[in-house]
Amino acid sequence: MSNYTKILVAVDLSDESSAVVRRATVIAANNGAQLHLIHVIEPLSFAYGGDIPMDFSGIQDEIQQQASSQLKRFGETHDISEDNQHIILGRPEVEVHGKAQELGADLIVIGSHGRHGLALLLGSTANGVLHGAQCDVLAVRVGD
Amino acid sequence: MSNYTKILVAVDLSDESSAVVRRATVIAANNGAQLHLIHVIEPLSFAYGGDIPMDFSGIQDEIQQQASSQLKRFGETHDISEDNQHIILGRPEVEVHGKAQELGADLIVIGSHGRHGLALLLGSTANGVLHGAQCDVLAVRVGD
Repeated sequence: MSNYTKILVAVDLSDESSAVVRRATVIAANNGAQLHLIHVIEPLSFAYGGDIPMDFSGIQDEIQQQASSQLKRFGETHDISEDNQHIILGRPEVEVHGKAQELGADLIVIGSHGRHGLALLLGSTANGVLHGAQCDVLAVRVGD
Repeated sequence: MSNYTKILVAVDLSDESSAVVRRATVIAANNGAQLHLIHVIEPLSFAYGGDIPMDFSGIQDEIQQQASSQLKRFGETHDISEDNQHIILGRPEVEVHGKAQELGADLIVIGSHGRHGLALLLGSTANGVLHGAQCDVLAVRVGD
């Protein structure tokens, strides 16, 4: 069984993302693998439906700028070069799968809250990423 | 970040289970972790509802005996001692979580087909195991 060669870590840039990246860093070291970081920004129109036409473009730009600089700092902290940092606007599961295939990643690492019940209905990114992934997926348990 | 110390691999004893265990074996070696194997047999009454009272006990016993000897052979092939082989009757996600907690496992490894659509509705064990797990979960992509 061959080692993992390219690992894509999906982060939401919350405090818990650090634990997820630290775990991925250990696995990358054990496997001699490259580490990539992805942060997906969901368009506000997804979050708010779309029945009422509203112009979110100013807020959206602001969110993207803030996310970009946060991801840059986050990458520096964890010693991941800017070339291996990816920030994309879209649906997390779609964009994570797309980037994993584009990179030829053989492992996706993502944080998971392990919640039951309502949180499941509200949608869990780890779950969405697990379904339809073309490679292995490690869900790192974070927080409660 | 500490290494994994105890890894629980959930297998359905299909041909694909070997790939899942081989991956887990590599991780166990990298981490110096103990490896445990679990196979959960779903009671026939779960599979067939329960509206019509039927006596499945003979067939159920036969299934359990066959599964036990298959798990034993499977464990021998992958050099996992009988003490670390667990066969349980119940719902896969419930029993896998329960055994992981009982053992103090810090990683669950399970096979995942990465299917879309209908298979999702029909229930995916990897998905069920991911939800509510108290530790990390690695879904190893197998088959199609």
